[in-house]
Amino acid sequence: MAVKVYGPSCAAAKRVLVVLIEKAIEFEVVPVDVFKGEHKDPEYLKLQPFGVVPVIKDGDYTLYESRAIMRYYAEKYRSQGIDLLGKTIEERGLVEQWLEVEAHNFHPPAYDLTIHILVPQLAGITPDQKVIEESEAKLVNVLNIYEERLSKSKYLAGDFFSLADISHLPFTDYIVNNMGKEHLIKERKHVSAWWDDISNRPSWKKVLELYKAPV
Amino acid sequence: MAVKVYGPSCAAAKRVLVVLIEKAIEFEVVPVDVFKGEHKDPEYLKLQPFGVVPVIKDGDYTLYESRAIMRYYAEKYRSQGIDLLGKTIEERGLVEQWLEVEAHNFHPPAYDLTIHILVPQLAGITPDQKVIEESEAKLVNVLNIYEERLSKSKYLAGDFFSLADISHLPFTDYIVNNMGKEHLIKERKHVSAWWDDISNRPSWKKVLELYKAPV
Repeated sequence: MAVKVYGPSCAAAKRVLVVLIEKAIEFEVVPVDVFKGEHKDPEYLKLQPFGVVPVIKDGDYTLYESRAIMRYYAEKYRSQGIDLLGKTIEERGLVEQWLEVEAHNFHPPAYDLTIHILVPQLAGITPDQKVIEESEAKLVNVLNIYEERLSKSKYLAGDFFSLADISHLPFTDYIVNNMGKEHLIKERKHVSAWWDDISNRPSWKKVLELYKAPV
Repeated sequence: MAVKVYGPSCAAAKRVLVVLIEKAIEFEVVPVDVFKGEHKDPEYLKLQPFGVVPVIKDGDYTLYESRAIMRYYAEKYRSQGIDLLGKTIEERGLVEQWLEVEAHNFHPPAYDLTIHILVPQLAGITPDQKVIEESEAKLVNVLNIYEERLSKSKYLAGDFFSLADISHLPFTDYIVNNMGKEHLIKERKHVSAWWDDISNRPSWKKVLELYKAPV
Protein backbone atom coordinates (compact mmCIF):
# COMPACT_ATOMS: atom_id res chain seq x y z
CA MET A 1 0.00 0.00 0.00
CA ALA A 2 1.38 3.39 -0.97
CA VAL A 3 2.35 5.89 1.73
CA LYS A 4 0.01 8.90 1.78
CA VAL A 5 1.83 12.23 2.19
CA TYR A 6 -0.38 15.15 3.24
CA GLY A 7 0.63 18.66 2.14
CA PRO A 8 3.32 17.81 -0.47
CA SER A 9 3.79 21.41 -1.66
CA CYS A 10 5.01 22.70 1.69
CA ALA A 11 8.72 23.01 2.43
CA ALA A 12 8.79 20.55 5.34
CA ALA A 13 6.97 17.88 3.31
CA LYS A 14 9.67 18.07 0.65
CA ARG A 15 12.19 16.62 3.12
CA VAL A 16 9.97 13.57 3.41
CA LEU A 17 9.39 13.25 -0.36
CA VAL A 18 13.14 13.26 -1.06
CA VAL A 19 13.62 10.36 1.35
CA LEU A 20 10.75 8.40 -0.18
CA ILE A 21 12.20 8.90 -3.68
CA GLU A 22 15.77 8.08 -2.59
CA LYS A 23 14.42 4.88 -1.03
CA ALA A 24 12.14 4.03 -3.99
CA ILE A 25 9.10 3.86 -1.69
CA GLU A 26 5.73 4.13 -3.42
CA PHE A 27 3.70 7.13 -2.30
CA GLU A 28 0.67 9.21 -3.18
CA VAL A 29 -0.01 12.79 -2.16
CA VAL A 30 -3.00 14.46 -0.53
CA PRO A 31 -3.00 18.24 -1.12
CA VAL A 32 -3.54 20.46 1.95
CA ASP A 33 -4.11 24.10 1.00
CA VAL A 34 -2.66 26.06 3.91
CA PHE A 35 -3.71 29.35 2.31
CA LYS A 36 -7.32 28.19 2.58
CA GLY A 37 -6.65 27.03 6.16
CA GLU A 38 -7.16 23.34 5.38
CA HIS A 39 -4.43 22.46 7.93
CA LYS A 40 -6.83 23.71 10.64
CA ASP A 41 -9.84 21.65 9.45
CA PRO A 42 -11.20 19.31 12.14
CA GLU A 43 -10.57 16.24 9.97
CA TYR A 44 -6.94 17.27 9.43
CA LEU A 45 -6.47 18.02 13.14
CA LYS A 46 -7.42 14.40 13.88
CA LEU A 47 -4.29 13.41 11.96
CA GLN A 48 -2.05 16.27 13.14
CA PRO A 49 -3.36 18.00 16.29
CA PHE A 50 -0.88 20.89 16.05
CA GLY A 51 -2.30 21.81 12.62
CA VAL A 52 0.91 21.79 10.59
CA VAL A 53 2.05 19.87 7.53
CA PRO A 54 3.20 17.25 6.67
CA VAL A 55 1.73 14.07 8.08
CA ILE A 56 1.91 10.59 6.58
CA LYS A 57 -0.46 7.65 6.68
CA ASP A 58 1.00 4.23 6.00
CA GLY A 59 -1.79 1.70 6.40
CA ASP A 60 -2.93 2.21 10.01
CA TYR A 61 0.23 4.05 11.01
CA THR A 62 0.14 7.85 11.20
CA LEU A 63 3.24 9.94 11.79
CA TYR A 64 3.97 13.66 11.79
CA GLU A 65 6.96 16.00 12.11
CA SER A 66 9.03 15.90 8.91
CA ARG A 67 12.34 15.01 10.56
CA ALA A 68 10.70 12.14 12.46
CA ILE A 69 9.12 10.79 9.25
CA MET A 70 12.49 10.99 7.46
CA ARG A 71 14.14 8.98 10.23
CA TYR A 72 11.33 6.40 10.21
CA TYR A 73 11.65 5.61 6.50
CA ALA A 74 15.45 5.78 6.52
CA GLU A 75 15.41 3.15 9.30
CA LYS A 76 12.55 0.99 8.01
CA TYR A 77 14.08 0.68 4.53
CA ARG A 78 17.69 0.94 5.63
CA SER A 79 19.03 -1.55 3.06
CA GLN A 80 16.81 -0.30 0.21
CA GLY A 81 18.32 2.49 -1.89
CA ILE A 82 21.03 4.68 -0.40
CA ASP A 83 21.71 4.43 3.36
CA LEU A 84 20.85 7.84 4.82
CA LEU A 85 21.84 7.21 8.46
CA GLY A 86 25.56 6.40 8.24
CA LYS A 87 27.08 2.94 8.59
CA THR A 88 27.96 2.93 12.30
CA ILE A 89 26.32 4.13 15.50
CA GLU A 90 28.96 6.89 15.63
CA GLU A 91 28.08 8.04 12.11
CA ARG A 92 24.39 7.94 13.01
CA GLY A 93 25.23 10.12 16.03
CA LEU A 94 26.73 12.74 13.72
CA VAL A 95 23.71 12.55 11.40
CA GLU A 96 21.55 13.27 14.46
CA GLN A 97 23.83 16.10 15.57
CA TRP A 98 23.60 17.86 12.20
CA LEU A 99 19.86 17.23 11.95
CA GLU A 100 19.56 19.03 15.29
CA VAL A 101 21.86 21.84 14.12
CA GLU A 102 19.64 22.23 11.05
CA ALA A 103 16.52 22.37 13.21
CA HIS A 104 17.85 24.74 15.88
CA ASN A 105 20.51 26.89 14.18
CA PHE A 106 19.87 26.91 10.44
CA HIS A 107 16.09 26.63 10.24
CA PRO A 108 14.94 29.56 12.45
CA PRO A 109 16.77 32.33 10.55
CA ALA A 110 16.13 30.63 7.16
CA TYR A 111 12.43 30.40 8.01
CA ASP A 112 12.29 34.01 9.21
CA LEU A 113 13.95 35.20 6.00
CA THR A 114 11.40 33.22 3.99
CA ILE A 115 8.48 34.69 5.89
CA HIS A 116 9.82 38.24 5.84
CA ILE A 117 11.01 38.31 2.21
CA LEU A 118 8.80 35.95 0.21
CA VAL A 119 5.46 36.52 1.92
CA PRO A 120 5.62 40.36 1.68
CA GLN A 121 6.60 39.97 -2.03
CA LEU A 122 3.49 37.88 -2.67
CA ALA A 123 1.22 40.07 -0.57
CA GLY A 124 2.64 43.33 -1.96
CA ILE A 125 3.46 44.70 1.49
CA THR A 126 6.64 46.33 2.80
CA PRO A 127 9.00 43.82 4.42
CA ASP A 128 10.44 44.37 7.90
CA GLN A 129 14.08 45.20 7.10
CA LYS A 130 15.21 44.87 10.73
CA VAL A 131 14.05 41.24 10.98
CA ILE A 132 15.60 40.51 7.58
CA GLU A 133 18.97 41.95 8.64
CA GLU A 134 18.97 40.12 11.99
CA SER A 135 18.01 36.81 10.37
CA GLU A 136 20.66 37.19 7.70
CA ALA A 137 23.32 37.94 10.33
CA LYS A 138 22.36 34.78 12.24
CA LEU A 139 22.44 32.74 9.05
CA VAL A 140 25.88 34.12 8.17
CA ASN A 141 27.24 32.86 11.51
CA VAL A 142 25.75 29.43 10.91
CA LEU A 143 27.04 29.23 7.34
CA ASN A 144 30.55 30.23 8.45
CA ILE A 145 30.55 27.22 10.76
CA TYR A 146 29.21 25.05 7.92
CA GLU A 147 32.03 26.31 5.67
CA GLU A 148 34.60 25.16 8.23
CA ARG A 149 32.86 21.82 8.65
CA LEU A 150 32.49 21.22 4.90
CA SER A 151 36.19 21.97 4.37
CA LYS A 152 36.82 18.75 6.31
CA SER A 153 34.07 16.42 5.07
CA LYS A 154 32.09 16.27 1.84
CA TYR A 155 28.71 16.26 3.61
CA LEU A 156 27.62 17.56 6.99
CA ALA A 157 27.76 14.31 8.96
CA GLY A 158 30.88 12.99 7.18
CA ASP A 159 31.88 11.77 3.73
CA PHE A 160 28.42 10.32 3.15
CA PHE A 161 25.11 11.85 2.06
CA SER A 162 22.53 11.66 4.85
CA LEU A 163 19.26 12.94 6.29
CA ALA A 164 21.22 15.89 7.69
CA ASP A 165 21.89 17.15 4.16
CA ILE A 166 18.36 16.40 2.92
CA SER A 167 16.85 18.39 5.77
CA HIS A 168 18.52 21.56 4.44
CA LEU A 169 17.16 21.28 0.88
CA PRO A 170 13.81 23.13 1.01
CA PHE A 171 14.90 26.31 2.77
CA THR A 172 18.32 26.52 1.09
CA ASP A 173 16.45 26.31 -2.21
CA TYR A 174 14.34 29.33 -1.16
CA ILE A 175 17.52 31.21 -0.19
CA VAL A 176 19.27 30.46 -3.50
CA ASN A 177 16.36 30.59 -5.94
CA ASN A 178 13.56 32.70 -4.52
CA MET A 179 14.78 35.49 -2.28
CA GLY A 180 17.86 36.98 -3.96
CA LYS A 181 20.19 35.75 -1.21
CA GLU A 182 22.16 33.20 -3.24
CA HIS A 183 25.40 35.04 -2.34
CA LEU A 184 25.09 33.55 1.16
CA ILE A 185 25.76 30.14 -0.38
CA LYS A 186 27.83 31.02 -3.46
CA GLU A 187 30.45 33.11 -1.67
CA ARG A 188 31.41 30.18 0.55
CA LYS A 189 33.48 27.71 -1.46
CA HIS A 190 32.71 24.53 0.44
CA VAL A 191 29.08 25.37 1.20
CA SER A 192 28.60 26.20 -2.47
CA ALA A 193 30.12 22.89 -3.63
CA TRP A 194 27.97 21.01 -1.11
CA TRP A 195 24.85 22.82 -2.32
CA ASP A 196 25.67 22.07 -5.98
CA ASP A 197 26.05 18.43 -5.07
CA ILE A 198 22.91 17.91 -3.00
CA SER A 199 20.61 20.14 -5.05
CA ASN A 200 21.53 18.26 -8.24
CA ARG A 201 20.41 14.90 -6.94
CA PRO A 202 17.62 13.50 -9.15
CA SER A 203 15.40 13.05 -6.06
CA TRP A 204 15.44 16.78 -5.28
CA LYS A 205 14.95 17.80 -8.91
CA LYS A 206 11.94 15.50 -9.11
CA VAL A 207 10.39 16.97 -5.95
CA LEU A 208 10.82 20.53 -7.28
CA GLU A 209 9.34 19.55 -10.63
CA LEU A 210 6.33 17.73 -9.21
CA TYR A 211 5.36 19.92 -6.25
CA LYS A 212 5.34 23.66 -6.72
CA ALA A 213 6.02 25.71 -3.61
CA PRO A 214 3.05 27.66 -2.22
CA VAL A 215 5.38 30.64 -1.59
CA MET B 1 36.78 5.27 29.80
CA ALA B 2 34.12 7.51 31.35
CA VAL B 3 32.08 9.81 29.14
CA LYS B 4 32.93 13.48 29.74
CA VAL B 5 29.87 15.74 29.90
CA TYR B 6 30.58 19.46 29.51
CA GLY B 7 28.22 21.93 31.21
CA PRO B 8 26.26 19.56 33.48
CA SER B 9 24.36 22.31 35.31
CA CYS B 10 22.56 23.59 32.23
CA ALA B 11 19.06 22.44 31.39
CA ALA B 12 19.90 20.76 28.08
CA ALA B 13 22.76 18.79 29.64
CA LYS B 14 20.36 17.31 32.17
CA ARG B 15 18.57 15.44 29.37
CA VAL B 16 21.86 13.71 28.60
CA LEU B 17 22.68 12.98 32.25
CA VAL B 18 19.31 11.26 32.80
CA VAL B 19 20.00 8.94 29.86
CA LEU B 20 23.51 8.12 31.11
CA ILE B 21 22.14 7.30 34.58
CA GLU B 22 19.19 5.26 33.20
CA LYS B 23 21.71 3.29 31.12
CA ALA B 24 24.26 2.94 33.96
CA ILE B 25 26.97 4.52 31.81
CA GLU B 26 29.99 5.84 33.71
CA PHE B 27 30.52 9.58 33.25
CA GLU B 28 32.41 12.54 34.65
CA VAL B 29 31.46 16.18 34.33
CA VAL B 30 33.38 19.24 33.19
CA PRO B 31 31.81 22.48 34.49
CA VAL B 32 31.22 25.25 31.92
CA ASP B 33 30.25 28.55 33.56
CA VAL B 34 27.98 30.21 31.00
CA PHE B 35 27.60 33.26 33.24
CA LYS B 36 31.34 33.81 32.89
CA GLY B 37 31.07 33.19 29.14
CA GLU B 38 33.13 29.99 29.23
CA HIS B 39 30.95 28.52 26.47
CA LYS B 40 32.47 31.16 24.14
CA ASP B 41 36.11 30.40 25.05
CA PRO B 42 38.23 29.41 22.02
CA GLU B 43 39.04 26.02 23.56
CA TYR B 44 35.35 25.29 24.12
CA LEU B 45 34.46 26.45 20.59
CA LYS B 46 36.81 23.79 19.23
CA LEU B 47 34.48 21.23 20.79
CA GLN B 48 31.18 23.04 20.08
CA PRO B 49 31.52 25.72 17.36
CA PHE B 50 28.06 27.19 18.05
CA GLY B 51 29.09 27.94 21.65
CA VAL B 52 26.29 26.18 23.49
CA VAL B 53 26.19 23.41 26.09
CA PRO B 54 26.30 20.44 26.38
CA VAL B 55 28.91 18.52 24.48
CA ILE B 56 30.29 15.08 25.26
CA LYS B 57 33.68 13.50 24.73
CA ASP B 58 33.83 9.73 24.69
CA GLY B 59 37.40 8.73 23.90
CA ASP B 60 38.07 10.37 20.53
CA TYR B 61 34.39 10.84 19.76
CA THR B 62 32.86 14.28 20.28
CA LEU B 63 29.14 14.94 19.97
CA TYR B 64 26.91 17.92 20.66
CA GLU B 65 23.18 18.77 20.65
CA SER B 66 21.49 17.21 23.68
CA ARG B 67 18.81 15.34 21.75
CA ALA B 68 21.43 13.84 19.41
CA ILE B 69 23.56 12.72 22.37
CA MET B 70 20.51 11.15 24.04
CA ARG B 71 19.76 9.17 20.87
CA TYR B 72 23.39 8.08 20.52
CA TYR B 73 23.59 6.55 24.01
CA ALA B 74 20.08 5.09 23.84
CA GLU B 75 21.12 3.30 20.63
CA LYS B 76 24.66 2.35 21.61
CA TYR B 77 23.55 0.77 24.89
CA ARG B 78 20.14 -0.32 23.70
CA SER B 79 20.08 -3.55 25.69
CA GLN B 80 21.69 -2.06 28.83
CA GLY B 81 19.22 -0.63 31.35
CA ILE B 82 15.78 0.42 30.19
CA ASP B 83 15.11 0.63 26.43
CA LEU B 84 14.38 4.29 25.68
CA LEU B 85 13.61 4.01 21.95
CA GLY B 86 10.59 1.68 21.86
CA LYS B 87 10.64 -1.97 20.80
CA THR B 88 9.70 -1.65 17.12
CA ILE B 89 10.54 0.72 14.27
CA GLU B 90 6.99 2.07 14.55
CA GLU B 91 7.46 2.79 18.27
CA ARG B 92 10.80 4.42 17.51
CA GLY B 93 8.98 6.57 14.92
CA LEU B 94 6.63 7.83 17.62
CA VAL B 95 9.53 8.50 19.99
CA GLU B 96 11.05 10.63 17.22
CA GLN B 97 7.73 12.38 16.57
CA TRP B 98 7.35 13.40 20.22
CA LEU B 99 11.00 14.39 20.50
CA GLU B 100 10.38 16.74 17.57
CA VAL B 101 7.16 18.03 19.16
CA GLU B 102 9.13 18.74 22.34
CA ALA B 103 11.80 20.59 20.37
CA HIS B 104 9.49 22.64 18.14
CA ASN B 105 6.24 23.08 20.11
CA PHE B 106 6.97 22.68 23.81
CA HIS B 107 10.52 23.99 24.11
CA PRO B 108 10.22 27.47 22.54
CA PRO B 109 7.48 28.81 24.85
CA ALA B 110 8.91 26.94 27.87
CA TYR B 111 12.33 28.45 27.16
CA ASP B 112 10.88 31.94 26.67
CA LEU B 113 9.00 31.67 29.98
CA THR B 114 12.24 30.63 31.69
CA ILE B 115 14.18 33.53 30.21
CA HIS B 116 11.47 36.09 30.89
CA ILE B 117 10.52 34.98 34.40
CA LEU B 118 13.61 33.42 36.01
CA VAL B 119 16.32 35.64 34.57
CA PRO B 120 14.59 38.94 35.53
CA GLN B 121 14.00 37.48 39.04
CA LEU B 122 17.73 36.83 39.42
CA ALA B 123 18.78 40.11 37.86
CA GLY B 124 16.18 42.14 39.75
CA ILE B 125 14.71 43.66 36.59
CA THR B 126 11.09 44.02 35.46
CA PRO B 127 9.93 41.12 33.33
CA ASP B 128 8.23 41.66 29.96
CA GLN B 129 4.62 40.72 30.75
CA LYS B 130 3.57 40.62 27.10
CA VAL B 131 6.15 37.94 26.21
CA ILE B 132 5.19 35.99 29.33
CA GLU B 133 1.49 36.05 28.43
CA GLU B 134 2.12 35.07 24.81
CA SER B 135 4.46 32.23 25.81
CA GLU B 136 2.01 30.95 28.39
CA ALA B 137 -0.81 30.99 25.83
CA LYS B 138 1.30 28.95 23.41
CA LEU B 139 2.23 26.50 26.15
CA VAL B 140 -1.44 26.10 27.13
CA ASN B 141 -2.26 25.04 23.56
CA VAL B 142 0.56 22.51 23.57
CA LEU B 143 -0.37 21.11 26.98
CA ASN B 144 -4.01 20.74 25.92
CA ILE B 145 -2.83 18.49 23.08
CA TYR B 146 -0.59 16.61 25.53
CA GLU B 147 -3.58 16.10 27.85
CA GLU B 148 -5.52 14.48 25.01
CA ARG B 149 -2.54 12.32 24.04
CA LEU B 150 -1.81 11.26 27.62
CA SER B 151 -5.45 10.26 28.12
CA LYS B 152 -4.73 7.49 25.59
CA SER B 153 -1.22 6.37 26.51
CA LYS B 154 0.78 6.47 29.72
CA TYR B 155 3.75 8.22 28.14
CA LEU B 156 4.06 10.47 25.09
CA ALA B 157 5.23 7.89 22.55
CA GLY B 158 3.03 5.07 23.92
CA ASP B 159 2.80 2.92 27.03
CA PHE B 160 6.56 2.97 27.47
CA PHE B 161 8.95 5.53 28.96
CA SER B 162 11.25 6.98 26.31
CA LEU B 163 13.60 9.76 25.26
CA ALA B 164 10.53 11.81 24.37
CA ASP B 165 9.54 11.99 28.04
CA ILE B 166 13.10 12.58 29.26
CA SER B 167 13.50 15.51 26.90
CA HIS B 168 10.71 17.37 28.75
CA LEU B 169 12.21 17.03 32.24
CA PRO B 170 14.46 20.11 32.60
CA PHE B 171 12.04 22.79 31.43
CA THR B 172 8.94 21.23 32.96
CA ASP B 173 10.85 21.22 36.23
CA TYR B 174 11.44 24.98 35.87
CA ILE B 175 7.73 25.48 35.14
CA VAL B 176 6.61 23.46 38.17
CA ASN B 177 9.28 24.33 40.71
CA ASN B 178 10.86 27.67 39.83
CA MET B 179 8.49 30.05 38.13
CA GLY B 180 5.15 29.72 39.90
CA LYS B 181 3.44 28.18 36.88
CA GLU B 182 2.80 24.71 38.32
CA HIS B 183 -0.93 25.14 37.63
CA LEU B 184 -0.16 24.62 33.93
CA ILE B 185 0.74 21.03 34.77
CA LYS B 186 -1.38 20.34 37.85
CA GLU B 187 -4.72 21.42 36.39
CA ARG B 188 -4.44 18.82 33.61
CA LYS B 189 -5.20 15.39 35.05
CA HIS B 190 -3.22 13.24 32.62
CA VAL B 191 -0.32 15.68 32.17
CA SER B 192 -0.09 15.92 35.96
CA ALA B 193 -0.01 12.13 36.42
CA TRP B 194 2.62 11.85 33.68
CA TRP B 195 4.73 14.54 35.33
CA ASP B 196 4.45 12.84 38.74
CA ASP B 197 5.61 9.61 37.15
CA ILE B 198 8.59 10.86 35.16
CA SER B 199 9.81 13.42 37.70
CA ASN B 200 9.91 10.77 40.41
CA ARG B 201 12.29 8.52 38.56
CA PRO B 202 15.50 8.05 40.58
CA SER B 203 17.56 9.17 37.56
CA TRP B 204 15.94 12.61 37.50
CA LYS B 205 16.09 13.02 41.27
CA LYS B 206 19.78 12.22 41.18
CA VAL B 207 20.44 14.78 38.43
CA LEU B 208 18.60 17.49 40.37
CA GLU B 209 20.48 16.61 43.53
CA LEU B 210 23.94 16.56 41.92
CA TYR B 211 23.75 19.46 39.48
CA LYS B 212 22.20 22.68 40.64
CA ALA B 213 20.60 24.82 37.96
CA PRO B 214 22.40 28.07 37.12
CA VAL B 215 19.03 29.85 36.96
